[in-house]
Amino acid sequence: MPTAADRLLDAVDEKKNPSVVGLDPRTENIPEHIRTEAVSRSSEPLEAVYRALVEFNKKIIDTVGDIVPAVKPQMAFYEQYGHWGVRAMEETIAYGKERGLFVIVDVKRNDIGSTAKAYAHGHLGSVELPGDHFVTTYDADMITVNPYLGTDGIEPFIKVCKKHDKGIFVLAKTSNPSSGEIQDRNLQGGRTVYEEVSHLIRDWGRELIGKRGYSSVGAVVGATYPEVGEKLRKIMPNAIFLVPGYGAQGGTAEDVVTCFNNDGYGAVVNSSRGIIFAYQKEPYSRDHGEEHFADAAGAAALDMKEEILGALDYANKLPDRW
Amino acid sequence: MPTAADRLLDAVDEKKNPSVVGLDPRTENIPEHIRTEAVSRSSEPLEAVYRALVEFNKKIIDTVGDIVPAVKPQMAFYEQYGHWGVRAMEETIAYGKERGLFVIVDVKRNDIGSTAKAYAHGHLGSVELPGDHFVTTYDADMITVNPYLGTDGIEPFIKVCKKHDKGIFVLAKTSNPSSGEIQDRNLQGGRTVYEEVSHLIRDWGRELIGKRGYSSVGAVVGATYPEVGEKLRKIMPNAIFLVPGYGAQGGTAEDVVTCFNNDGYGAVVNSSRGIIFAYQKEPYSRDHGEEHFADAAGAAALDMKEEILGALDYANKLPDRW
Repeated sequence: MPTAADRLLDAVDEKKNPSVVGLDPRTENIPEHIRTEAVSRSSEPLEAVYRALVEFNKKIIDTVGDIVPAVKPQMAFYEQYGHWGVRAMEETIAYGKERGLFVIVDVKRNDIGSTAKAYAHGHLGSVELPGDHFVTTYDADMITVNPYLGTDGIEPFIKVCKKHDKGIFVLAKTSNPSSGEIQDRNLQGGRTVYEEVSHLIRDWGRELIGKRGYSSVGAVVGATYPEVGEKLRKIMPNAIFLVPGYGAQGGTAEDVVTCFNNDGYGAVVNSSRGIIFAYQKEPYSRDHGEEHFADAAGAAALDMKEEILGALDYANKLPDRW
Repeated sequence: MPTAADRLLDAVDEKKNPSVVGLDPRTENIPEHIRTEAVSRSSEPLEAVYRALVEFNKKIIDTVGDIVPAVKPQMAFYEQYGHWGVRAMEETIAYGKERGLFVIVDVKRNDIGSTAKAYAHGHLGSVELPGDHFVTTYDADMITVNPYLGTDGIEPFIKVCKKHDKGIFVLAKTSNPSSGEIQDRNLQGGRTVYEEVSHLIRDWGRELIGKRGYSSVGAVVGATYPEVGEKLRKIMPNAIFLVPGYGAQGGTAEDVVTCFNNDGYGAVVNSSRGIIFAYQKEPYSRDHGEEHFADAAGAAALDMKEEILGALDYANKLPDRW
């Protein structure tokens, strides 16, 4: 079986596109006709939310599925709606995989060993029920995790990744404005905290390097700090970077180029609001009305692809085989 | 309205007990008769898990509810079972509150601002649905959060805490063996990472100090590192420490005493497996069979209370009003 990193890079090659669409649906941004239909089919408000989230995501996946290699649903936007929201997450993952997409679930989980194991089994593996019975619940291809608890909070994930050919992206340097408060602090010896974490990520990933030369233990490196991307590329040459912060958060195509290796691989760039709610802003709102929100998302996803490929080309980093 | 910290300390006074029972049910440890009954009433395996988790927790809450001020369900042990598990979490929180207990949900969430807001609304506040309609989903009294993203990943929680009189415990020093890999590293200037985080926690909590002198922004400080508790007590005099690691993880009553202020407050100590699965180990298994697992949990909870009160008394830290 190919590793998660191999599968992700094969998907990137197939689409000739290293960009990812974040599925972060906010009910208030979901088109009116989808909400009305969901309400008419539901007996309680949160059931209607569930139906609206699933319907919205399916339409987005149908359109961007031919353009991008992967989608990245963000758990918070589902979990906030309780078990109905989590059910929408499960069905979104299943639909994405059914349509041949690689699914990264952004959960940023972290806990002590025995608890991390429960998260790992649930999100990436299967949970054991009494009587030697195993059930898969979420079945993501990769998830994000937080490194603050150190190795024994990460190992349970790595174990499940090995067994089920899955992967994790560990937070190194996040895209938000105050990420530096802890991550940028200088340690005695000269490294920053995020550099120290990146060395740990490199070590954690050693045993999970696949045929393509990349590990299924990747790193989250925000697009909003391009100088950091360059530094971390050297520390973690075999890690795939999941790069959030593109678009709505201010990261540009030029900013993310430093996160790629010279072979043109090593990073996937995520945009969420900028793609899925493109129908609400120019120029997409002009070309596609609310009714055609998915077409707007498709157009925005194509633009993002072109922007990134353009910047990679300019930096002489387009993969040879494309 | 009293703040979350005020409510927690009032509950501690009412029970004359600063210990908390962690509700971390693992299906394989749930008594056979509960599992069988759950299966007989369910049409799919995960529905049976949901029924078994809720039934088990209700029985535990019924018994320990007279002994402890609070329970702390750990999200991982519910979330791993998908939306059925999350439904069990929701009903567990509701039942705990119905029985007058303070409910701390251990989620260790963390994300960038706009996403942290979704977690905050979901777990501590209410989520807005189209048409100015608000719904509460989890409605915990306090949750745990991870500080790695800095202030703008914490502020959305604080905002919701202010509005809804809720609270957070921020991870400072966790109880697991490798917590030191990042948390104990020395920063330039002399502080460790966990000390730096503790200074941030102190600052974050300033505006949430209640009548009892404690903030609704607390800290997670592992019982397994008693020397750390002493140091952090000085940095965060107004923070309530949530102290995991007691019992199954090796922390003793003597170890946790350093986490309390001289007034006898400032810490709640959690034990999970050691209490809820007490029926599986001596001496509780001898006195109470599997059928009476809840009585075993009650006996273990009483023993824990006595151990901690004994150690507090010995250190001359019992609250005056007890």
